[in-house]
Amino acid sequence: MRTLAIVGTGLLGSSFGLAAKRVGHFDRILGVSSEAVVSKALSIGAIEEAMALEQALPLADVVLLAQPVLRIISLLETINPLLKTGALVTDVGSTKVAISNAAKHIARGRFVGGHPMAGREVRGPEGASADLFVGRPWVLTMAEPELVSLVEKFGSRPFILDAEQHDLLVAHSSHLPQLLSTALASYLGERELRHVAGPGLHDMTRLALSSHELWADILDTNASNIDGALAGLIEELEAMRDALAKGRLAKHFEQGAVMAKRLRSI
Amino acid sequence: MRTLAIVGTGLLGSSFGLAAKRVGHFDRILGVSSEAVVSKALSIGAIEEAMALEQALPLADVVLLAQPVLRIISLLETINPLLKTGALVTDVGSTKVAISNAAKHIARGRFVGGHPMAGREVRGPEGASADLFVGRPWVLTMAEPELVSLVEKFGSRPFILDAEQHDLLVAHSSHLPQLLSTALASYLGERELRHVAGPGLHDMTRLALSSHELWADILDTNASNIDGALAGLIEELEAMRDALAKGRLAKHFEQGAVMAKRLRSI
Repeated sequence: MRTLAIVGTGLLGSSFGLAAKRVGHFDRILGVSSEAVVSKALSIGAIEEAMALEQALPLADVVLLAQPVLRIISLLETINPLLKTGALVTDVGSTKVAISNAAKHIARGRFVGGHPMAGREVRGPEGASADLFVGRPWVLTMAEPELVSLVEKFGSRPFILDAEQHDLLVAHSSHLPQLLSTALASYLGERELRHVAGPGLHDMTRLALSSHELWADILDTNASNIDGALAGLIEELEAMRDALAKGRLAKHFEQGAVMAKRLRSI
Repeated sequence: MRTLAIVGTGLLGSSFGLAAKRVGHFDRILGVSSEAVVSKALSIGAIEEAMALEQALPLADVVLLAQPVLRIISLLETINPLLKTGALVTDVGSTKVAISNAAKHIARGRFVGGHPMAGREVRGPEGASADLFVGRPWVLTMAEPELVSLVEKFGSRPFILDAEQHDLLVAHSSHLPQLLSTALASYLGERELRHVAGPGLHDMTRLALSSHELWADILDTNASNIDGALAGLIEELEAMRDALAKGRLAKHFEQGAVMAKRLRSI
């Protein structure tokens, strides 16, 4: 009899529960969350039983931490005494180095970091779906057989990267594009551009709609990689100003188009 | 009997012809272009007669220059002797200051700069449509009554801006987002991000698919405004690096989200 405990039954936690139930990997699925969130997760069938953390963890063979990064870190620093011996602990946090460091406190079980590259605009269990992970990459910090198999059953593509590699990669693939969109929108600010804005400006400012609340922990725990990416991009922009003055931007356009096409060639 | 001559019967020129025919504003629509392009424009009914420039211009009450910016400039510098007295000359070029300066050569007729904010990925008359301009803004450098009325009949929204205001505005609303997307894609370059890229990175690199050929004239004729916009954005990025180090990015996110929402509130 294998038991899963989901700590944090929001969008990702509840989607994990629904996907786990569909593939039938666990005999029992427990959920830990605030009153409102956990009852919604129960009502959509994402979990089978709601419990307090202190009750759920001693029962769990697999523990999923599905909360914002800083909350995951504080859980990792405190839950060890509650864990069943040999429990497998994983998470869905958006950065991995700070979380992996905090996981050094997990002595009774084993920790493998995870990051499913999936999401939706809708937050909370309301937006949860067993299909959320289908076709999406799922970074694991180790090739742990049970997790690899589970993630594959979910229809996701497991992708093994150590925590440092992961954080450097997402600084470029996700955090830099976010900050660039925010920088553009924030810089354009008061200018009245609505009446002449085309689809290009819409594309470039869509990420800027994101709230800081969702990003605060990510920025906090990956600041050094993000700063490096911003510095690199500023260098590229300065090089382009130089090339603009000399009428020599063709090379930048070509390099950009090659990358943009490769990105779409999967 | 009112005659229109379209010089350059590509996407915009042929769409203008189709829209003009639909609203019945002209008695005769002439087209000037390369052999292949003009015969395609004829076959889709965007023009009624193909002619050489020297034949068409002396017949035209309204002349539309629908070519790349530098080609429009060289036409404006040479066509004056061919024009019918009092002819109205307009264009669809993406920048307006350099074109307005070249239009000082138009003495036999009057020049009013135009820029319909419309386009498609498909180039040439193949992509032309009488609906291309519907709901889109159309900048005119003067409130010339015939053009305002024509543009309104096309379903477009005339927007009066002088050439300097126009070029400063599009430097921010269009040229800066393009260069930013190119810079991001060019900077990310060789990094292998396909497997972890989400919809955000796709949004932010879509404009980078554009070819330099389409942009060369625009960059050339609006370099100073674009350089100013790039410098301003780099300042914003440096301010954000600073705020990142101090954990104080909330204000930038808020400002960015306000602007991104206002852009979508039209």
